[in-house]
Amino acid sequence: MEDQQLLQFFSEILAEADENEKSALYSLLEGVLKKQRNEYKTYLAGLMGIKSKLLDENTYESIIPVRDLVHNPLQMVHGGITASLIDIAMGSLVHQSLPSDQAAVTSEMNIHFLSKGDGNELRCRSHIVFKSHTRWVIKANVYRDDGTIVATATGNFIVIPRKV
Amino acid sequence: MEDQQLLQFFSEILAEADENEKSALYSLLEGVLKKQRNEYKTYLAGLMGIKSKLLDENTYESIIPVRDLVHNPLQMVHGGITASLIDIAMGSLVHQSLPSDQAAVTSEMNIHFLSKGDGNELRCRSHIVFKSHTRWVIKANVYRDDGTIVATATGNFIVIPRKV
Amino acid sequence: MEDQQLLQFFSEILAEADENEKSALYSLLEGVLKKQRNEYKTYLAGLMGIKSKLLDENTYESIIPVRDLVHNPLQMVHGGITASLIDIAMGSLVHQSLPSDQAAVTSEMNIHFLSKGDGNELRCRSHIVFKSHTRWVIKANVYRDDGTIVATATGNFIVIPRKV
Amino acid sequence: MEDQQLLQFFSEILAEADENEKSALYSLLEGVLKKQRNEYKTYLAGLMGIKSKLLDENTYESIIPVRDLVHNPLQMVHGGITASLIDIAMGSLVHQSLPSDQAAVTSEMNIHFLSKGDGNELRCRSHIVFKSHTRWVIKANVYRDDGTIVATATGNFIVIPRKV
Repeated sequence: MEDQQLLQFFSEILAEADENEKSALYSLLEGVLKKQRNEYKTYLAGLMGIKSKLLDENTYESIIPVRDLVHNPLQMVHGGITASLIDIAMGSLVHQSLPSDQAAVTSEMNIHFLSKGDGNELRCRSHIVFKSHTRWVIKANVYRDDGTIVATATGNFIVIPRKV
Repeated sequence: MEDQQLLQFFSEILAEADENEKSALYSLLEGVLKKQRNEYKTYLAGLMGIKSKLLDENTYESIIPVRDLVHNPLQMVHGGITASLIDIAMGSLVHQSLPSDQAAVTSEMNIHFLSKGDGNELRCRSHIVFKSHTRWVIKANVYRDDGTIVATATGNFIVIPRKV
Repeated sequence: MEDQQLLQFFSEILAEADENEKSALYSLLEGVLKKQRNEYKTYLAGLMGIKSKLLDENTYESIIPVRDLVHNPLQMVHGGITASLIDIAMGSLVHQSLPSDQAAVTSEMNIHFLSKGDGNELRCRSHIVFKSHTRWVIKANVYRDDGTIVATATGNFIVIPRKV
Repeated sequence: MEDQQLLQFFSEILAEADENEKSALYSLLEGVLKKQRNEYKTYLAGLMGIKSKLLDENTYESIIPVRDLVHNPLQMVHGGITASLIDIAMGSLVHQSLPSDQAAVTSEMNIHFLSKGDGNELRCRSHIVFKSHTRWVIKANVYRDDGTIVATATGNFIVIPRKV
C-alpha cells in the first residue's frame, strides 16, 4: 500500500467525521505514535491510552481515560476493555517483580463486573496474593474516579523461563 | 482540532512507518471507517476486525484475524483481546436471543487460557448453558485455525429491561 | 475413649432420634463402614454416598443420593456438597487418566450454580477439555434425575510427581 | 430400622475400629448430636465441626479443626471441605447482614487453592466487596494456623424474598 493511498483513505474518513469522531481519531493516532516509538508495546494499549506505575513493591496501578475509543454501544466502558485493563495491570505487576530470566503467562482469570464504567477514568489496582516458583495469584480491583468499584478480579499466572 | 492538523499528524506517523506499521494503520482505518458507518458499534470491534454470525438458535460464532493490531509484545494474540472476543461473542448471543424490550449485562466471566493465540484467525463459539427470566449462563471456546483450543470460558449475564 | 463410652454416646443419640434421623444415622454408618473397609477413601465420600464410574476414556460420572445427610437448611443439596461432588468427579477423572508416577492437585475451580439440587440423586459428568505435561483443564456438569442442570464448573489441575 | 439393629451395626463398626477411627467416630457423633439439637443446621457442618462468628459488620470468620473427618486420601484437608468452608462462611456473612424478609443463594463461586490445608485448624475470613438490592459479591481467604494462605475465593449471591 502506497503512502498516497493511505493518506487519501485517512482524508476520506476525516471528511465524514463529526467532532467526536475527530477527537477519537486524534487519540487513536496518539496511541499509534506511542506504539511506533515503543512507548506502548501493543496497539491495544494505545487504543486504551493506559498509564501504569508501581505504587509499592506489592501494588501496581494502571489508569485509562474514559473516552469514545473504549466505549461499548451504551457509552460505558466496554467489558472487554475492563478485562484488558485488568489483564495488563495484573500481568505487568508479575513481570515487574519476576527476575529477568523468567516470564509469566495468564492461565486463568475470573472477573466480577459490579458497576458501570464511566466518569473520567478507570483505575485498576492489582496486588500479589500468592507466589511460588511456578505460580503467582494476583487480585485486582477497578474503580471509577468517584470511588465506586467497577470490577473485581483474580488471575492465575504460570511462571516460565524467558527465552533470550 | 482542525482537519489540517489531523492530516499533518497522520502524515508524520506515516513518514516513520515501516511496512508492518502501514499495514496495521490500513487495517485500523478500515475499522474506524466501519465504526463511522455504524457497521461496527465500537472502536474495539474495529481494532479487532471481528465478524460474527449465528450458526444455529443456540450457537454463535465470532472470528478475528490474527494481525499486529491484536498482538501482545510476544507477537501472540493479547489476552485482553481474547477476553474481548469472548465477551463480545457471549454477549452477542444473549442479545440476539432476548426479546426486544430486554438487554443483558455481563456480571461475571471466567476464562482459562490454554494455548497461544496465533495462526491466521481466532474463532470463538459460544452457546447457551442456562437461561431464566433474570439470568443467562453462556459458555465459549476459542480455537486457532489448526483446531487447537486457545481458551475456554463461562459467563454470567443478568437480564435487565431495555430503556426505550 | 473406651468402646463402652462410644456405645453409650451412640445410644443416647439414638434415644432422641426421630425416624428421619435414624435413617440418616444408618446411611452415615454405612459410609463409615465403607471408609473402614477402604471402599471409600474419605469420610466426606461416605457422608455423600458417592458412586463413580468411567463412562469412556474422556468422561467420568459420579452420582450421589439426595438425602438428609447432604441437605442445606432449606432441604436442598448443600452448595458445599455440590462443590465436593464436582471436585471429586473432576479429580477422579484426572487421576484415572494420569500415569501411575504422577498425581494432580486442584489449583482452581469455578462453579455456576443454576438450579436447586433435589430429586432422588445428583449426577455429575466431567470431561477433559485440555491436557499438557503440567496442566489439565476439566469441565463438569451436575444434573438432577429430571435432567435439569444444577451446576456447571471448570477446574484447573496441576500435575505433580507422585511420591512413592 | 429398629434401634437394636442400629446399635448392632454401630457395635460391629466399633469392633473393627482402630484408635484413629474411634476418635473420628466420636467427633462424628458429636456433630450428629449438635445437628439433632439444632446447634448445627446441616450434617455437613457437623462433620466439619465448624464454628463461626461475626468479627465486625463487614467480616465473618469460620473455623474448622483439621482432623481425619475432613481429610482427603493424602491426609490434607479435602478440596471439597475447603470449598464448603468457603461457601458456608460467605453465605453466613450474607444472611447475617440481610433483612429478615430476604434470603440469598450462591450463584457462582471461584476458588484458587494455594497451599495444602493442614496444621490444627483452617480459618476462613469473608468480607463484603459489593452489595446492591439484588446481588452481593463476597471475598474469602482461608488460612492455616501458621498464617499460610490456603485458598482465596470470590462468590456471587443473588438476593431473593424469604418465604415465610
